[in-house]
Amino acid sequence: EIVAAAAGMLGAGPLAGKRIIVTSGPTHEPIDPVRYIANRSSGAQGTAIARALAALGAHVVFVTGPADVAPPEGVEVVRVQTAQQMSDAVDAALPAEAAVFAAAVADWRVASQSDRKLKKTRDGMPKLEFAENPDILARVAQMATGRPGLVVGFAAETNDVIENATAKRARKGCDWIVANDVSAATGIMGGTENAVVLISDDGAESWPRMGKDAVARQLADRIAAALA
Amino acid sequence: EIVAAAAGMLGAGPLAGKRIIVTSGPTHEPIDPVRYIANRSSGAQGTAIARALAALGAHVVFVTGPADVAPPEGVEVVRVQTAQQMSDAVDAALPAEAAVFAAAVADWRVASQSDRKLKKTRDGMPKLEFAENPDILARVAQMATGRPGLVVGFAAETNDVIENATAKRARKGCDWIVANDVSAATGIMGGTENAVVLISDDGAESWPRMGKDAVARQLADRIAAALA
Repeated sequence: EIVAAAAGMLGAGPLAGKRIIVTSGPTHEPIDPVRYIANRSSGAQGTAIARALAALGAHVVFVTGPADVAPPEGVEVVRVQTAQQMSDAVDAALPAEAAVFAAAVADWRVASQSDRKLKKTRDGMPKLEFAENPDILARVAQMATGRPGLVVGFAAETNDVIENATAKRARKGCDWIVANDVSAATGIMGGTENAVVLISDDGAESWPRMGKDAVARQLADRIAAALA
Repeated sequence: EIVAAAAGMLGAGPLAGKRIIVTSGPTHEPIDPVRYIANRSSGAQGTAIARALAALGAHVVFVTGPADVAPPEGVEVVRVQTAQQMSDAVDAALPAEAAVFAAAVADWRVASQSDRKLKKTRDGMPKLEFAENPDILARVAQMATGRPGLVVGFAAETNDVIENATAKRARKGCDWIVANDVSAATGIMGGTENAVVLISDDGAESWPRMGKDAVARQLADRIAAALA
């Protein structure tokens, strides 16, 4: 790994000269100045993937929501809060040879976002109106021109992992889906290990449970092979 | 301060033998296994208050939501996620001589919380039903028997700070309200400084803007004087 890291720093390695966008972390969707809706995501897996890609020589644009873990060294960091900001940052980072969408993006934002703190009223809960957020994965995967050669999505599932992830891949039009089971019993969410299934044209390939860094290195190797 | 800290460790100081409950941090209210609603709160001010009270000799029960900052040394730490758990933890910690409710507790929880990840549907946003959370401040402030001698609430306001906080004090029945302006322009939320107004029977007393640690020490001194 030290050799790989050195290769990355020297602009060598199998991904040298390749520009890869990696999104990571949760998004925070404001309700008002003090409240927001969030996805649970430490950013650990996305950060590890960005690090592994950079170690193979890639120029990584790392678009990260408010994650618990610090961004890796040696990547171009773009910090965002909301799904809309993440979408804009991805647009600004294109074109790229590959895009890995590891962030846990909120599907909805609060359309009725308030500049003032919402107050309790006699009628109870203030009325919240929701709007659908941009679907970054689907949009990039279905770009008519300038689509990255490899578009990788993630699926965090709590049940029927392979079925849900396979359907997601078809629906979004991406090349690969990295799926995992985040139900509480697995301890994966917020943990240091991951057990993923890689969904591609070749079907579903279950990887053994391993550290998130090891998952990242294996995925980076596969990306390097696909772009070679 | 070193003297005060030493006094705390030796069980001396003006608050020696006093049991004080301090709540701190945000609460996280689950929507489903991967989504939640949160309040913005780093926990910095509540943590500083607990530290300052312990330094004056108090036995502090520190009930904290998922905060960004670590709990102080020398306090009894109870970790919770939701408002209901915080309410239960406060009940379990009573009786106490004083209670300082610095946490940013969610007013509502998702009544329709799902064990499975909610999916996008053709109809858009999954239907969320909200239920009001227990009002910890009002309940403790209005206890018929066993009420702490001093009950301190907090008010994070974005407008009409003194008016809103004065009304909140009357509505909740607490002794003091520590109010501050968390509108974005102040930079207080997530920052290291605070500018508070102390609302009591004596009216509204505006404190100069100072570090959150200094606010905490001044408040701890006032609490010690009130309990003397």
